[in-house]
Amino acid sequence: MAIEIEQPTVPLSRVAVSETHGEDSPYFAGWKAYDEDPYDESENPSGVIQMGLAENQVSFDLVEEYLEKHPEASTWGKGAPGFRENALFQDYHGLKSFRQAMASFMEQIRGGRAKFDPDRVVLTAGATAANELLTFILADPGDALLVPTPYYPGFDRDLRWRTGVRILPIHCDSSNNFQITPQALEAAYKDAEAMKIKVRGVLITNPSNPLGATIQRSVLEEILDFVTRKNIHLVSDEIYSGSAFSSSEFVSIAEILEARGYKDSERVHIVYSLSKDLGLPGFRVGTIYSYNEKVVTTARRMSSFTLISSQTQHLLACMLSDKKFTENYIKINRQRLRKRYEMIIEGLKNAGIECLKGNAGLFCWMNLSPLLKTQTRESELSLWKSVIHELKLNISPGSSCHCSEPGWFRVCFANMSEQTLEVALKRIHNFMDQRKKETN
Amino acid sequence: MAIEIEQPTVPLSRVAVSETHGEDSPYFAGWKAYDEDPYDESENPSGVIQMGLAENQVSFDLVEEYLEKHPEASTWGKGAPGFRENALFQDYHGLKSFRQAMASFMEQIRGGRAKFDPDRVVLTAGATAANELLTFILADPGDALLVPTPYYPGFDRDLRWRTGVRILPIHCDSSNNFQITPQALEAAYKDAEAMKIKVRGVLITNPSNPLGATIQRSVLEEILDFVTRKNIHLVSDEIYSGSAFSSSEFVSIAEILEARGYKDSERVHIVYSLSKDLGLPGFRVGTIYSYNEKVVTTARRMSSFTLISSQTQHLLACMLSDKKFTENYIKINRQRLRKRYEMIIEGLKNAGIECLKGNAGLFCWMNLSPLLKTQTRESELSLWKSVIHELKLNISPGSSCHCSEPGWFRVCFANMSEQTLEVALKRIHNFMDQRKKETN
Repeated sequence: MAIEIEQPTVPLSRVAVSETHGEDSPYFAGWKAYDEDPYDESENPSGVIQMGLAENQVSFDLVEEYLEKHPEASTWGKGAPGFRENALFQDYHGLKSFRQAMASFMEQIRGGRAKFDPDRVVLTAGATAANELLTFILADPGDALLVPTPYYPGFDRDLRWRTGVRILPIHCDSSNNFQITPQALEAAYKDAEAMKIKVRGVLITNPSNPLGATIQRSVLEEILDFVTRKNIHLVSDEIYSGSAFSSSEFVSIAEILEARGYKDSERVHIVYSLSKDLGLPGFRVGTIYSYNEKVVTTARRMSSFTLISSQTQHLLACMLSDKKFTENYIKINRQRLRKRYEMIIEGLKNAGIECLKGNAGLFCWMNLSPLLKTQTRESELSLWKSVIHELKLNISPGSSCHCSEPGWFRVCFANMSEQTLEVALKRIHNFMDQRKKETN
Repeated sequence: MAIEIEQPTVPLSRVAVSETHGEDSPYFAGWKAYDEDPYDESENPSGVIQMGLAENQVSFDLVEEYLEKHPEASTWGKGAPGFRENALFQDYHGLKSFRQAMASFMEQIRGGRAKFDPDRVVLTAGATAANELLTFILADPGDALLVPTPYYPGFDRDLRWRTGVRILPIHCDSSNNFQITPQALEAAYKDAEAMKIKVRGVLITNPSNPLGATIQRSVLEEILDFVTRKNIHLVSDEIYSGSAFSSSEFVSIAEILEARGYKDSERVHIVYSLSKDLGLPGFRVGTIYSYNEKVVTTARRMSSFTLISSQTQHLLACMLSDKKFTENYIKINRQRLRKRYEMIIEGLKNAGIECLKGNAGLFCWMNLSPLLKTQTRESELSLWKSVIHELKLNISPGSSCHCSEPGWFRVCFANMSEQTLEVALKRIHNFMDQRKKETN
C-alpha cells in the first residue's frame, strides 16, 4: 500500500485513491466540464447542465419554512438556554433527543411498518462514514463484501480505501431489470471461493442508486436467506427510502425482520442519512442502525472519528421531532419527486429514449445502448463524451457504476429547477432528432 | 484482528478497542464514579468532582456574548440568504471563508510569528479524526509512530485502532521535567529497529497534554533534526496552542520552519482544533495543516469520512473572521487560564503537593509520588482509587498516559467554576492533613 518515494523525499502511505473516484478518475471529465462552463438560465444558457449530482432540492422550501417559523431550532446566544451544554456535548452516543427523532423519522418513512429503537441508532458524519465504519467492523483487510452491480461509484473509495476490504460484484443485468437473483448471489460467492477470498457480507442499496428502483420483497427474502445460509452479514443502505415515490412501494429489510420475528437479525445492519431524503448533505448526518449489540457498541465507539456537530444535532432534533412537519414533508417530497420523475421519463420517451421503470430516488436509469456503435465500454464512453461536449449535459456512464452492460446512464433530475430540466430535455430531443436525420 | 465467534453467531472484525480507552479500561472506574455521584454545590455537595475532563469553560461567556451580538452567524430561515447553498455544501475543501478564518486564527494565536496558507488547511470533524487521518497517510499497518511519554491516552485508540499502526514510546522522565532529549529519541528508534518495526514518524503534543507545558525551541530544533536525519515525518499536535498562558511562551513548529526558510518542511504536519482553545468540542472542528502537497491532497479526499457540518462552518467562519472578537478572546482566555492555574498550584502547594512547572493547557501535572507506598504502578492505582472514593475527585493517573514513573496525576481545572475548584482544593488539603496526622 505504501508508495515509497525516492530519497530524500519522505515516504508516504495511502496517497492513491480508487480509480473511479477523485480527480484521477476518467469520469472526472464530466465534472470538470461542468465546473468550467456551468449552465445559467440568463448568464450562460448554453453551458453544461449538471445531471450527475444526486442532490434533492425539490423540497427545500419546506425546510426553510420550518426554520422561519421555528427560530428556536437554530438561534443561539445568551438568550437561548442550553447553548453551553450543547457546545460542550461530544458524547459519542449523540443527543438523545436527536436519536429519538431519527428513529421516529425512520419509522414514519416506512409507514410505521417497522420499529426502531433509539438506543440502536449510531450517529456518523454522513452515510459515507457509516458505510466505511461498518466495513471496518464486519471485515478484515483482504476480505470481501459482495455488492450488486450497478452500484454507487463512491463505494470503491468508501468501502475499500482505508479498510483494505475488497468489493466483489454480484452481476445483475437488464434481462430481469437488474434484479438480484439467488443464482447471481451464488455465482459471486463462488468467484470469491475460487480466489480464496473470505466473504464477510452483502451490501445492498435499497432503493437502488443508480437504478432508481426499490428491491422487491421476495428478492429481499432471498438475500436474507442467502446471507443466513452463508453465515455472513447484510448491510442495507436505505438512504433513499424517503425518496421512494410512495411509501407502499418501498420494503425495508427492517420489515422483513419484523415479519420473521427478528430471526437472523444479528447479521443485519441498516445505513441511513438525511443528505438525500431531507436534502441536507452539508449537515453531514448519517446513521447506522444495527440489530447486533456488539456492532452497535463498537460502531458507537468508532464514531468518535466522525461525530456530528452538536449544533446541527440540536437543529435537526427540533425539526424531526415535529411530527406535523415530518408527515407533511415526507408526503410532499414523495409527490414532487414522482412528478419530476414522470416529467423526465415522458420527455425522454418523446425523444425516443427508454428508461428502466423506476419508483424511487433522484435519478433515472437511461438506456442509450441503441445508440452505441458497438456494445462496448469504449463505445459507451465515446457516447458519453458527446453528451458532455455536444449536449452539454453531465450525466454518469454505467461503467462508472460497474454496470455489466454498456449503454446505460444515470440521469439526476432533483438538483435543478423544472425550467432547467425542460432545457435539458429539449437538448436531448434535438440531439436525437439530429441523429435520426443523420442515420436516415 | 477479526474476532471469530463460534457458529451460528455471525463473525465480526475489530470489535476490540484499546485497553486504555472505553468502558473496558481499568481507568473507566473514575468516570463511572463521577457519573453515579456527580458533585453539585447545592444538590450533592459531597459528590465526585470531575477533574479528569480537559474542557475549557472559563471563556465561554465571550462566545455567548459574540453570538448574542451577531445573530446572523447562527440564525437561518427564509430571511437568511445563503441557507440553501450552505445546507447543500458538502465539498471536502470546506467553506473557503472558514478555512481563511482558521488560518488567520492560527496565525493570531502564534502572535503573527508564523503564516498559514488557507489552501493547506484540511478540515476534519475534530482532532481525533485529524490524528487518525494523518496516521493512515503516513504509515502502513505494522509501522510505528514514536510518541513521547506521558501522552494523551486517547492516542492508543485514535492512532492505532483502525490503522493497524503501532505507537512506540519515547521515554521521558522527571529528571529533566519530562523534556524530550536526542538520546530518548535515538533510544526509541533503536528499540524499533531491534523489533524490526519501520518507524514512519514522531508525534509530539505541544503544548503537552498531560504535562501542561510547552516544548522549548531548542528541543523542537533537535526533534526536527532527528526526523530529518531519519527521513521520517513529524506530526505536531498543537490543539492547546491558544491555551498557553502567554503567546511568547509557545513556539510552534511552524515558527521553526519559517526561521529555516521551510527547509525540511515537507515532513511536517500540524494538527489543530477548536475544541480546547475555543471550548467547542461539541462542534467537532479539527484541522490538518501540512507543508506537504501530497498529504494536503490526500487528506482532503480522505476527509470525506469526517466532514464538518456546513452549518457549524458558517457560524465559526463569522465568529473567527471578526478580528476584534478573536484578539480579545485569545488575550482574555490566556489570562483566565493562567489565573486558574495559579489558583490550583497555590492550593496544592499549601497542601504540601508539588506540580511540574506548567505554562499552558487546562490541567496541571501533579506529583503524588511521595505518597506512594512503593514506587510502582499498582501503588499509583491504589492511591488513585483512594482519591476517587475518599476525596471524591476524578483525576487521571499517569499510568493511563504511559508515564514511565509512578505517582504523577493529571488534574483538570478549567471545566468547573472557581467555587468548585475551591471545594476540590479544600478536600485535598484535608486529605493531606489527615495523612500527616496518621504518619506522625
